[in-house]
Amino acid sequence: MKKLWQKTGTKTAKIVHKYIISENLTEDQILLPYDIIASIAHVKMLNKIKILNDKEVSNIIGSLKEIYKLNEMGNFQLAGKYEDCHSAIENFLIEKLGDIGKKIHTGRSRNDQILVAIRLYTKDKIKELEKASLSLAKQILKFSKKYEFVAMPGYTHTQQAMPSSVGQWAGNFIEALLDDLKLLQCAFSLNDQNPLGSASGFGTSINIDREETTKLLNFAKTQVNSLYCQNSRGKFESFTISSLSQLMMTLGKIANDIIWFTSYEFNFFQIDKSLTTGSSIMPQKQNLDILEVLRANVSVIMSYDFQIKTAYHNLFSGYNKDLKISKHALIESFNITLNSINV
Amino acid sequence: MKKLWQKTGTKTAKIVHKYIISENLTEDQILLPYDIIASIAHVKMLNKIKILNDKEVSNIIGSLKEIYKLNEMGNFQLAGKYEDCHSAIENFLIEKLGDIGKKIHTGRSRNDQILVAIRLYTKDKIKELEKASLSLAKQILKFSKKYEFVAMPGYTHTQQAMPSSVGQWAGNFIEALLDDLKLLQCAFSLNDQNPLGSASGFGTSINIDREETTKLLNFAKTQVNSLYCQNSRGKFESFTISSLSQLMMTLGKIANDIIWFTSYEFNFFQIDKSLTTGSSIMPQKQNLDILEVLRANVSVIMSYDFQIKTAYHNLFSGYNKDLKISKHALIESFNITLNSINV
Amino acid sequence: MKKLWQKTGTKTAKIVHKYIISENLTEDQILLPYDIIASIAHVKMLNKIKILNDKEVSNIIGSLKEIYKLNEMGNFQLAGKYEDCHSAIENFLIEKLGDIGKKIHTGRSRNDQILVAIRLYTKDKIKELEKASLSLAKQILKFSKKYEFVAMPGYTHTQQAMPSSVGQWAGNFIEALLDDLKLLQCAFSLNDQNPLGSASGFGTSINIDREETTKLLNFAKTQVNSLYCQNSRGKFESFTISSLSQLMMTLGKIANDIIWFTSYEFNFFQIDKSLTTGSSIMPQKQNLDILEVLRANVSVIMSYDFQIKTAYHNLFSGYNKDLKISKHALIESFNITLNSINV
Amino acid sequence: MKKLWQKTGTKTAKIVHKYIISENLTEDQILLPYDIIASIAHVKMLNKIKILNDKEVSNIIGSLKEIYKLNEMGNFQLAGKYEDCHSAIENFLIEKLGDIGKKIHTGRSRNDQILVAIRLYTKDKIKELEKASLSLAKQILKFSKKYEFVAMPGYTHTQQAMPSSVGQWAGNFIEALLDDLKLLQCAFSLNDQNPLGSASGFGTSINIDREETTKLLNFAKTQVNSLYCQNSRGKFESFTISSLSQLMMTLGKIANDIIWFTSYEFNFFQIDKSLTTGSSIMPQKQNLDILEVLRANVSVIMSYDFQIKTAYHNLFSGYNKDLKISKHALIESFNITLNSINV
Repeated sequence: MKKLWQKTGTKTAKIVHKYIISENLTEDQILLPYDIIASIAHVKMLNKIKILNDKEVSNIIGSLKEIYKLNEMGNFQLAGKYEDCHSAIENFLIEKLGDIGKKIHTGRSRNDQILVAIRLYTKDKIKELEKASLSLAKQILKFSKKYEFVAMPGYTHTQQAMPSSVGQWAGNFIEALLDDLKLLQCAFSLNDQNPLGSASGFGTSINIDREETTKLLNFAKTQVNSLYCQNSRGKFESFTISSLSQLMMTLGKIANDIIWFTSYEFNFFQIDKSLTTGSSIMPQKQNLDILEVLRANVSVIMSYDFQIKTAYHNLFSGYNKDLKISKHALIESFNITLNSINV
Repeated sequence: MKKLWQKTGTKTAKIVHKYIISENLTEDQILLPYDIIASIAHVKMLNKIKILNDKEVSNIIGSLKEIYKLNEMGNFQLAGKYEDCHSAIENFLIEKLGDIGKKIHTGRSRNDQILVAIRLYTKDKIKELEKASLSLAKQILKFSKKYEFVAMPGYTHTQQAMPSSVGQWAGNFIEALLDDLKLLQCAFSLNDQNPLGSASGFGTSINIDREETTKLLNFAKTQVNSLYCQNSRGKFESFTISSLSQLMMTLGKIANDIIWFTSYEFNFFQIDKSLTTGSSIMPQKQNLDILEVLRANVSVIMSYDFQIKTAYHNLFSGYNKDLKISKHALIESFNITLNSINV
Repeated sequence: MKKLWQKTGTKTAKIVHKYIISENLTEDQILLPYDIIASIAHVKMLNKIKILNDKEVSNIIGSLKEIYKLNEMGNFQLAGKYEDCHSAIENFLIEKLGDIGKKIHTGRSRNDQILVAIRLYTKDKIKELEKASLSLAKQILKFSKKYEFVAMPGYTHTQQAMPSSVGQWAGNFIEALLDDLKLLQCAFSLNDQNPLGSASGFGTSINIDREETTKLLNFAKTQVNSLYCQNSRGKFESFTISSLSQLMMTLGKIANDIIWFTSYEFNFFQIDKSLTTGSSIMPQKQNLDILEVLRANVSVIMSYDFQIKTAYHNLFSGYNKDLKISKHALIESFNITLNSINV
Repeated sequence: MKKLWQKTGTKTAKIVHKYIISENLTEDQILLPYDIIASIAHVKMLNKIKILNDKEVSNIIGSLKEIYKLNEMGNFQLAGKYEDCHSAIENFLIEKLGDIGKKIHTGRSRNDQILVAIRLYTKDKIKELEKASLSLAKQILKFSKKYEFVAMPGYTHTQQAMPSSVGQWAGNFIEALLDDLKLLQCAFSLNDQNPLGSASGFGTSINIDREETTKLLNFAKTQVNSLYCQNSRGKFESFTISSLSQLMMTLGKIANDIIWFTSYEFNFFQIDKSLTTGSSIMPQKQNLDILEVLRANVSVIMSYDFQIKTAYHNLFSGYNKDLKISKHALIESFNITLNSINV
């Protein structure tokens, strides 16, 4: 078999580069603090196994904390300067500390670095969502008690079927939210496994102490098989989004019911004007745009789940760049779900 | 607003009927035993709250057990005779016991009857899957220990990257299966809630004892809000299938890797001829059709998840016939996943 | 790299076999007539290029027509006897004609045989759908003219917005159906390409006359590249189903609007009782189950499109068994869409 | 039924507002030039039916062209100042021309304004894609002729099956691209219908001349039923994206094949280094990240199709804000597909 060779100029190379990294920096900016936290744990572990001495460690951790603070104040922008959050951190360390800065890369790869940052981010966001869901459930509980005996028809087949109450209608969403919380906990527990130390998917020749970073980063367990660490990328994200989609389905049902109940024909509820938007040619109308957008966002979350699963489908074992898209899908899903629940 | 009236003849009515019940009977045949088990619990509860006396109960339960046995021997076919498994049971009881047979319908509706049958079926099938997954994990463990030190390249980007071993490759699927088992347990726990007694979604005027059937049917808890019982249809099924899809994604990855590893170019493994099929024009070829079908079935399961979620989307609270499709989707998903794991 | 060997018994082999061919026979029974039509054209072409003489041709075509008639009368059942429709035809020919029967396999493979049968089936079904869509559009036109001036509110954001009429509401679906017809014609034109002669994807050493079968089978053109014939499997089916889904989206919108318009709150229309079904605990209720099932079937069709596209994703060029699932997806999609439009 | 009232403060109102318009401005910036082109046609039509006099028209068109130019130079930023591109245009006109500027809103609504802008954008982008696809097809043709007789195995079931050539392999993608072009033309033709004049979905009381804007904007026909104009939102976008997904499936197959063919095991091709990226711990490796990202983008496009279809599902006839999400989905789909084909 003759080998074929294709030549390309620098111009093409630029397009290539842009195609690969496009839009990634926004997500990397969000992951940066988690990358730093994991890096600190990694450095401490390297100290424990005597690869870094105490002084090196204190220098590196000092610089990492500096990035963390700069970033909090909005003064550590990746855009235009760095390829991803990992190289940004490394470059900063090298600039500050010279050769010592380079040592942080010992025994890890960008592949496990991104994995661990995403896990920490996911755990954090699930906690945030749990709080918001519980608070919503409590508000609905109050509402549902207040209107416990306000009569409202019960529907089957979109037809009035049985007498019911506003309280019963609202109450059903409390129980749904409590179930959704349990599913979020499943997703949390799936993500509560430390991939750090799996390197590019086949471990490292250095005798690192993976249990140490598990302990330092507060993971429930270490993900043992390093190839599985890579293969679980996309898998964990899609299960997480699938759990988010259950929560979104609950919010979507609330939104959809309210849209019908506030229509002229049903006229069960009225919504405060501050929540509605007007119409350019019918100024007297009060539209519940926000609930329609929420309803549509249920489809958006579902599609992110589908997107990752399809990208994962028929992929060869080991790291593949394909699942890079899961970063955007996951972060967008959390953003939308958190915004939706706050709304 | 004038009312419009559309006339239709009996011929149309038949088409309508056929359109609605098409293909449902196969699924109802599968759900029949679970419907009987739930019916027995319901009858016992009616006895406890003094709606049925001891003699009625023993008659009804006797007849229900008769259907159960007839069905086990393949002698209780729904096809052509009944609309669904619920009416089949009721008709049989009425034929056998006359008016006593009718009493089983007290305090329940076909809507909660189907819900509880599906839950019992789901719990049963998840247990079956758990057993099969564990057994597969054990086989892979044996294989992976046997070939622990047989060298094999580790891949990133479909390119040889690092030295690895057959054992490491195989081992990654054990850890994946154990994670999948945990997700199945989440699905089990979600389904472990008793909807019986919610009737058509707004409870019943009779003072039934829902905790009693929960206890008799071995559910972990009672699903309190009766409207939520209806609204959870589709929701629980889609989460269950979503968990199955995680397991299928693991099986699909095994299949896909093996397809490549047994190609002439990789040539890592050879597969026993009994597992392969020939070609009509190239008889010497050994094709791994079965793994390709398995790989495709991953998409089938994913699509069932998507199907239910889309059907659920923008549905008004309360029972809607739309989610009837979830019966087929769920049962097919279990069939395919169980067959796939056995293969 | 040492070769690993896995032994399996005959029992496993049976499971394998069942897993691969499960449910395929129903679809093959439907494709059988199209396979015969294509086989007749193939035989005539073999005659033209002097591979079969006139007598052989008349014998083979006679037997093929016999199968066609047997099948029309329901007397040519594949189930239990044959693996697929292709081997059924060949076995029948060999039994009838001995070695002459075998000659039909010259210059073709099961791979292009199934492709051509599916294309002929698809073209046929699209024609059927076009007729049904046009007839529905005409009925709506009549309805829309009759109620042209019956006032009805026009809605934006599910809120009454502007005065409108029943005629305008109904009329919007006519224009939608006409657009859907155009999309069906795109799908028809995509399928109107002859794959016969591409064999297993790399042509055949025999100098067959592909233009001849294109002419005989009334295809608009020959699909030139034989590898593309294989790679277009799944591609053509998914585009076809995607076009069907547009038609289903129109039918689903009609169904959904009517469900709301016949609710007590809107009360614009009443539907003849023959189209509705009763409730087991509320006998006075009239439920539009049929429209709910139709609405759910929109999701089913969408999911078949998604199923094929996901199965197609990341597949290596050339024939792969994965796309076998597209047979079921396509045929079910046509069945459901045809039934839906007739309803 | 008592009316329930929920009070909300201004803070909530801000969250609501942000939730609705988030991320829309990027898309509106892209649609702005098309909105201006449609506005010019609308103004000319208003002149023809004597609602605007010649002087008013020349003033308004002058200002519209000014925005167009400012925007071309990047000096007309929506972000932070406007809610959408429509209000930006109107505000600019009012500031410049006072009451005359307001007149542009006569006989149209934001609802048909966005529809027409999206149609013009879509037509433009399809033309661009057609050019790029044709150019790619030509490059592949050159490549395929050059290597017409370079032998390469033909594969079935991922196994070497028949002798083939590099030319045949490459040639199959030319035919696929030509089919994709036809599907793009279907999408073009579907979008080639003028919705302007349908206002919010129920026409306008002013006797506007819809054929005039159809002619001026170079549409093939006028979309007659004004309710259908609204109901076709989401429908047209999903069909368009579905056609894009077919093109992406072709590009994805090219990418996937090349990834395998350039692996060490196949080693058919080598790719110029400028197209590859290195690895942080294995600097000698050449990774085809770009093709992996492309492969993943196939899933992204598919998911946008699914997203819109799900959002469309079970929506009540008439304008609903839900389909706002189709703007982002469509524009992202075009961006990704165009970037992918250029890559």
